[in-house]
Amino acid sequence: MASKMLRGRFKGGISPVLLGFSSSLDTDKEMFFEDVWGSEAHVLMLAKQGIIPAGDAGKILKALGDVKKEYSAGKFELDEAFEDVHINIENYVISKCGIEYGGRMHTARSRNDQVLTDTKLHLRKELLEVMGCVLELEESLLCLADQNADAIMPGYTHMQHAQPITFGFWASSYASMLLRDFDRLSGAYAHDNTCPLGAGALSGTSFPIDREYTAKLLGFDGVHVHALDAVSSRDHVLEALSALSILMCDLSKLAEEFVLWSSCEFGFIEFSDSFATGSSIMPQKKNPDMAELVRGKTGRVYGALMQVLTLMKGLPGGYNRDMQEDRELLWDALYVVKGSLQVLNAGLSDAKINRARMSESVYADFSTATELANYLVKEKGIAFRKAYEITGGVVKELSSRKKDLRDTSEVIAFLKKSGVTASSDALSEILDPGKAASRNKSLGGTAPAEVRRMVKELRNDAEAKEAGLKKRIEKVESAKKLTQQAVKEMI
Amino acid sequence: MASKMLRGRFKGGISPVLLGFSSSLDTDKEMFFEDVWGSEAHVLMLAKQGIIPAGDAGKILKALGDVKKEYSAGKFELDEAFEDVHINIENYVISKCGIEYGGRMHTARSRNDQVLTDTKLHLRKELLEVMGCVLELEESLLCLADQNADAIMPGYTHMQHAQPITFGFWASSYASMLLRDFDRLSGAYAHDNTCPLGAGALSGTSFPIDREYTAKLLGFDGVHVHALDAVSSRDHVLEALSALSILMCDLSKLAEEFVLWSSCEFGFIEFSDSFATGSSIMPQKKNPDMAELVRGKTGRVYGALMQVLTLMKGLPGGYNRDMQEDRELLWDALYVVKGSLQVLNAGLSDAKINRARMSESVYADFSTATELANYLVKEKGIAFRKAYEITGGVVKELSSRKKDLRDTSEVIAFLKKSGVTASSDALSEILDPGKAASRNKSLGGTAPAEVRRMVKELRNDAEAKEAGLKKRIEKVESAKKLTQQAVKEMI
Amino acid sequence: MASKMLRGRFKGGISPVLLGFSSSLDTDKEMFFEDVWGSEAHVLMLAKQGIIPAGDAGKILKALGDVKKEYSAGKFELDEAFEDVHINIENYVISKCGIEYGGRMHTARSRNDQVLTDTKLHLRKELLEVMGCVLELEESLLCLADQNADAIMPGYTHMQHAQPITFGFWASSYASMLLRDFDRLSGAYAHDNTCPLGAGALSGTSFPIDREYTAKLLGFDGVHVHALDAVSSRDHVLEALSALSILMCDLSKLAEEFVLWSSCEFGFIEFSDSFATGSSIMPQKKNPDMAELVRGKTGRVYGALMQVLTLMKGLPGGYNRDMQEDRELLWDALYVVKGSLQVLNAGLSDAKINRARMSESVYADFSTATELANYLVKEKGIAFRKAYEITGGVVKELSSRKKDLRDTSEVIAFLKKSGVTASSDALSEILDPGKAASRNKSLGGTAPAEVRRMVKELRNDAEAKEAGLKKRIEKVESAKKLTQQAVKEMI
Amino acid sequence: MASKMLRGRFKGGISPVLLGFSSSLDTDKEMFFEDVWGSEAHVLMLAKQGIIPAGDAGKILKALGDVKKEYSAGKFELDEAFEDVHINIENYVISKCGIEYGGRMHTARSRNDQVLTDTKLHLRKELLEVMGCVLELEESLLCLADQNADAIMPGYTHMQHAQPITFGFWASSYASMLLRDFDRLSGAYAHDNTCPLGAGALSGTSFPIDREYTAKLLGFDGVHVHALDAVSSRDHVLEALSALSILMCDLSKLAEEFVLWSSCEFGFIEFSDSFATGSSIMPQKKNPDMAELVRGKTGRVYGALMQVLTLMKGLPGGYNRDMQEDRELLWDALYVVKGSLQVLNAGLSDAKINRARMSESVYADFSTATELANYLVKEKGIAFRKAYEITGGVVKELSSRKKDLRDTSEVIAFLKKSGVTASSDALSEILDPGKAASRNKSLGGTAPAEVRRMVKELRNDAEAKEAGLKKRIEKVESAKKLTQQAVKEMI
Repeated sequence: MASKMLRGRFKGGISPVLLGFSSSLDTDKEMFFEDVWGSEAHVLMLAKQGIIPAGDAGKILKALGDVKKEYSAGKFELDEAFEDVHINIENYVISKCGIEYGGRMHTARSRNDQVLTDTKLHLRKELLEVMGCVLELEESLLCLADQNADAIMPGYTHMQHAQPITFGFWASSYASMLLRDFDRLSGAYAHDNTCPLGAGALSGTSFPIDREYTAKLLGFDGVHVHALDAVSSRDHVLEALSALSILMCDLSKLAEEFVLWSSCEFGFIEFSDSFATGSSIMPQKKNPDMAELVRGKTGRVYGALMQVLTLMKGLPGGYNRDMQEDRELLWDALYVVKGSLQVLNAGLSDAKINRARMSESVYADFSTATELANYLVKEKGIAFRKAYEITGGVVKELSSRKKDLRDTSEVIAFLKKSGVTASSDALSEILDPGKAASRNKSLGGTAPAEVRRMVKELRNDAEAKEAGLKKRIEKVESAKKLTQQAVKEMI
Repeated sequence: MASKMLRGRFKGGISPVLLGFSSSLDTDKEMFFEDVWGSEAHVLMLAKQGIIPAGDAGKILKALGDVKKEYSAGKFELDEAFEDVHINIENYVISKCGIEYGGRMHTARSRNDQVLTDTKLHLRKELLEVMGCVLELEESLLCLADQNADAIMPGYTHMQHAQPITFGFWASSYASMLLRDFDRLSGAYAHDNTCPLGAGALSGTSFPIDREYTAKLLGFDGVHVHALDAVSSRDHVLEALSALSILMCDLSKLAEEFVLWSSCEFGFIEFSDSFATGSSIMPQKKNPDMAELVRGKTGRVYGALMQVLTLMKGLPGGYNRDMQEDRELLWDALYVVKGSLQVLNAGLSDAKINRARMSESVYADFSTATELANYLVKEKGIAFRKAYEITGGVVKELSSRKKDLRDTSEVIAFLKKSGVTASSDALSEILDPGKAASRNKSLGGTAPAEVRRMVKELRNDAEAKEAGLKKRIEKVESAKKLTQQAVKEMI
Repeated sequence: MASKMLRGRFKGGISPVLLGFSSSLDTDKEMFFEDVWGSEAHVLMLAKQGIIPAGDAGKILKALGDVKKEYSAGKFELDEAFEDVHINIENYVISKCGIEYGGRMHTARSRNDQVLTDTKLHLRKELLEVMGCVLELEESLLCLADQNADAIMPGYTHMQHAQPITFGFWASSYASMLLRDFDRLSGAYAHDNTCPLGAGALSGTSFPIDREYTAKLLGFDGVHVHALDAVSSRDHVLEALSALSILMCDLSKLAEEFVLWSSCEFGFIEFSDSFATGSSIMPQKKNPDMAELVRGKTGRVYGALMQVLTLMKGLPGGYNRDMQEDRELLWDALYVVKGSLQVLNAGLSDAKINRARMSESVYADFSTATELANYLVKEKGIAFRKAYEITGGVVKELSSRKKDLRDTSEVIAFLKKSGVTASSDALSEILDPGKAASRNKSLGGTAPAEVRRMVKELRNDAEAKEAGLKKRIEKVESAKKLTQQAVKEMI
Repeated sequence: MASKMLRGRFKGGISPVLLGFSSSLDTDKEMFFEDVWGSEAHVLMLAKQGIIPAGDAGKILKALGDVKKEYSAGKFELDEAFEDVHINIENYVISKCGIEYGGRMHTARSRNDQVLTDTKLHLRKELLEVMGCVLELEESLLCLADQNADAIMPGYTHMQHAQPITFGFWASSYASMLLRDFDRLSGAYAHDNTCPLGAGALSGTSFPIDREYTAKLLGFDGVHVHALDAVSSRDHVLEALSALSILMCDLSKLAEEFVLWSSCEFGFIEFSDSFATGSSIMPQKKNPDMAELVRGKTGRVYGALMQVLTLMKGLPGGYNRDMQEDRELLWDALYVVKGSLQVLNAGLSDAKINRARMSESVYADFSTATELANYLVKEKGIAFRKAYEITGGVVKELSSRKKDLRDTSEVIAFLKKSGVTASSDALSEILDPGKAASRNKSLGGTAPAEVRRMVKELRNDAEAKEAGLKKRIEKVESAKKLTQQAVKEMI
């Protein structure tokens, strides 16, 4: 980061080759308002501490107010020659107030702590939005789970029919997962939301600054105390990207199932026309693009994580210019994750769940074989591993004859060979997928009653998380007001 | 995972090509004792709930006790034909007790929840050790910081001398960083330490199991309730690997500085002979291999993270065999991280800090130029940006004449040109690196007093974390005892 | 890398903490024979150039022969105190011949060029094997393609039925892909197969060595000339890992389709019992583990690539100890890739292709809609985009009435509304999936005749590649013989 | 990819949520001219084959010419509702010519093969530029090497002084490395430069197209024959990203050395003011930002590779919408790599090499110890390992007395203790770093004569590569002319 302004010791300007290569203007534009807020808080603190006169502070704050208005109105042109947003704004303030006043704004801070503060403020804002989107998808999944708590479908392992489950059980599994994703985002938020301003270039400052006050004006939960640690570290970025990557991993699993289940072979779910796209050549196509894109965009977020991990690896302490690269893919990752959550949520809202097809599918397989083995254990006193063997034999026999477990007479005949007598009634009861699912009443099991119980429990958790999220949002909002109030009093 | 035992429905055995390719025996050996503990808890629960008779449970528990003893004594041979540790142990139990008793051990569970339980138990153990190692390195760094709170050295940004700092300030910056690493490991621990046992294959079970009881016997903090979520998810692995990757990133920075500072150009630190190695051909070499290896092994942990992120991406819910791959690089990563922490800690313990060299280095540069600018602001009332320009000019002038800031008469002369009068005494005071550092008394700054204050604060935090860690260790230990007590009563 | 032997300038031994952490014994054992071969070639060259007396060379070569025999017989114990394989072997030679002879073996080389030579020799061997496995899978796919050149199945895009294709077309698409994978491996081989021996520590040597001769004895294609470049670079490792990662990416796609097609919803393929596994609890399960494992292990190879990319990033030139980490995951990746190729090949060999199911599936969809549009273009002179619109309307109408394109009378009726007359005969011809596929005779299209032509062409390519591979293998073999011959003459 | 145009079978438009999420307009704008070229070639082929009337073709080609002009003049507005560049252009053509003519443009192709063709054309263009930049940096390094072939400096391993080398040797090591990078880019180019147009959606087409002709018009080296392979694969993207990642890895090493050598501790190199930047607070700073940014941007390219590897992993064959994500980070990576090469090249051009400092540095160390050992071998007939021990002792002794190898009398005294007599003259000769470097005349060694020889050889190689590059560029240019000529004749 450099500009004409910072070249006191140099002969001549920066090479245009380097200027283009090193510019972060596009990326840092996103943090325009955060940069102004940071400067407002800094200037208010400088004035409060008597480091700069109150009158000078007023002039600077006035200019900062103006630049916000001009920028919002699309009238403030960022100049590449000033290379980054921060110097552009400082330059505006100086040209508005004159260097004898505007030149005081950068007292007792450095771009190192300034840019980092902006980044943390912006990341904070984005994380709050992502967390909000997670909770929205959470609620959609819980509704779906509630409505379909007793809709029977095949449960898969290895993509093979394993045991009958309910669609509500399936939907609530993702709802359960997402709450941990929320936790991780929340942990990343906590490490993000500490204030580095006042760390200076790397070692603090000899001016009598009040870092607690700045942190308060900016709505931070506290100060990132150690100056060198603050400017050297980007672990809050890595933690956020890790949490986002794991979240996308979870969404990619959901997306994969949506893609599979939209296929004509499965046919379990159909997205509305407004969430599907056609082909440029095949007139019949209806593609689950939404889900494919979410799955595909997972790579982007992983890539962003890998980028910052690579970038920070082996860098010596203190600021190194490499670290400018910490933001661009981070903003992109946040944008991708928000979009993925929103699009899945919107797509789910009017998707058609094909209960009939799911039910049909589960009745035509062997997915209650485990129940048969369990029956032999419970009612016939056979050890599980033995019961498993007997049932394996039944399956082998039936499938070689193209029959399935609905053929109870066949099952009875085969069991007899193994010395077990079982009535047709008992077997019909045992082997019915719907009844089988209902029997899995163990904690966390697929029985409709247990699913409904879990939905309630998960909703309670989600509501508690939502309350916490609201508190955080309000804290930020009131800090904004506090700053604006103080600015008003100073101008 | 498969073996001769589980092939009731198949004709013939597994192809040897697949058997070799799919074996997880080497990796899962690490979890031998966890697997036995998991089975003990499961069997105790089955008996308590009346799912299997107490007498049968006793027989199984006896056999489990035996297998532990044989394994410890190196007498238990794992058979590749039984492909994994779990089936090897079940097979042992069955052959010891007969299938009519031993065959009851696997009632109401599946390998899906069983292996996951083992993994979580083992990861828990390893995370506790890593956290312990983090706190040990933390303490070493804090000691170093305390002892060197006033040892002046150059502070770097962009690898250029930036401002004078103290070696204690530098050391404590890593101590500050590591506490956040501890937090992340602790967060990963929390998500790891919930019990999946009882989730079954994916949908719970129709047996009246008591999951809370099993969780208690195994020292878990609670139950991972949702069965399908439990067997489908590996986010606890990803969270652990993320935390470990970020930790290694931090260690790689420390290692990089050790490598640089051991060079003859820097010469700030010298590791003892027992932590350095020689060359096969150059007799004079003394290499900081320890630090290089830590830096290099960072890639391994990143690679492990990327592996599991890739592996889980786009997998549909339920267990898929791909997920067997979640452990091998995880164990390796934990091993690498522990080793890195230990080796850095041991290496630091008798490293020689070359205070004279550091001090010499800082006096020969321009790193107090910021202080000159600040002086113009504070004492001469000049706006910072203007003061910065003036100082930039001083630097340009001096360096073109191969002089530095110790030449106060030159500085005075140049300042005069800019219309500023400054006394030689004032400048000597201002431009002395040691005094400059001492003036940075702002919160988190490099002033020795502030460094000492931070060391105290960081130590308090570390002690609180250590207390929490001990509690977790004790909880695990007492669960072990609880299980063994219950086993004893049942045999 | 260090040992007691190399500690002339140090007081005392290496710390055991560091010794355990830094040992590469396990990894380097894989290169035992390569290390001996490298030393043989080096010693032969030293003698030829008169750098060491022929008699001394003979003694050393004798000892090297002995160590090979002992190692093969399992009698040579590697000692951790000598930390790596290379020093273990040198130590053996010295203790056999005495230091006045054995001590001459390491003249004019360094461990830097020595270990790198071993690595390149071993990687070469492994790459040749991987390339062989690629060609074997290639041939299996081509056979499958030939046998099923006219077996109709649905072609998918977005996992939706798109257009009818043949199974042979599908199988040959992977065969076509694999040939590019072969190219990349071959490119990696070329960069691997240059000889670094003689680069010394980093700057060559003042002894009058003959690098061309050593390279010839070791079967290299040439000398990696620039000494500093040779010891600083690991791009041959990165290139190999990139090629392997892309190959695994391709195999993961194949594996994904195998998993899907083994599902009961698709049912297109069934692996033999010996390539499937069961469940520990669900007696009916038949899991396509083979394919899942290949898909899952993809992450491992990506992880290895990411590891070495991370490791090398930002390392200054010359050897750095970090680079010891270049091998372990590389060997693992090669092992994983070979296993994946072999297991897929073996699994394919007796898989059952369910032609009936595939054909059934394609007749029940709209996948010939494109052909209807094309027909309107060709026979009715309608512009494609217009024809596409009309056909889209037909599909919308039919699917809203639960009909499909087999209902030609419906199609005729709807076309009439758009002002197009079409005969039932023409439509039957046009809309038949098998006939539709046969019409796609464009270069590279799915028509059976074109598939058969492509199979021939691909086989020709594969045979040419196989011939090249054999030449490379023979070159290595004759170099081995050449060395052994020269050794024999010297002893 | 979808638009209003392709929704014949749907009720209503795409949800705006999805539209925003799925748009690729920004990314695909880069390929505007490639898309037009592709359409021109396609339409020319359709007309040649009689698939559409020549007159219709003329109208379409006219419209395509117009859209290029409008776009160049900034008058063509891309409409988000048409979601991608391709449909925007087709829509323009249709609205210009009417659907009865313009609607014929998309005959016998699909967006799948169309977009892929555009991507390959654009990647080709970018790869040619990157390869050009590699050769420019190559030449700069070779000039530097030539000019400094005898400038003595320390050669490092483990960041420790190892042996004396020359700066020309160092510079030429990167020149040697870059030629392999060129090879890899060239390999990626070859796999990129095959024409997928005519593959259709996935299975070719029933129209009698001539794919060879289209390929020729577009300057491809040949046809990517297999239609399904062509649309399913992105290995050319992965291969390009791998080559770029390895290249960036090499540049990151160079950059790391620039950063280190610009530090005041090393002081070997100084970039001109126009390639350095200042600090916002520290007036004395002169930062090697250029090199830091190159090092930092390495992560971006790695991230892009990891993204596409993730994205493609486990995707079934045929086009999946995930694959839309193959381009955005690819374009970014290419941009980053070109910028890195250019900025390093420009920065090198007026960097100041501090020969005096380098020479000073090498005389004050033990880096000729190896030469002492070699001397004992050559002149005194001592076995190397023994000589190594003796020399290690010398170093230990001298360094404990704060002396170095310039103290020949000390060396003589110590050697005597080991029973070796050496003259002062001989030792001065042996231990002089410059002379030592000159003695390393082995192939690829650091001796100035050998460096100059290597520079010549490397330049020859580079010139051959440049000739090949020019041929490729010319081929593309003449294909462009050929197409424009054919267009002119048709309009």
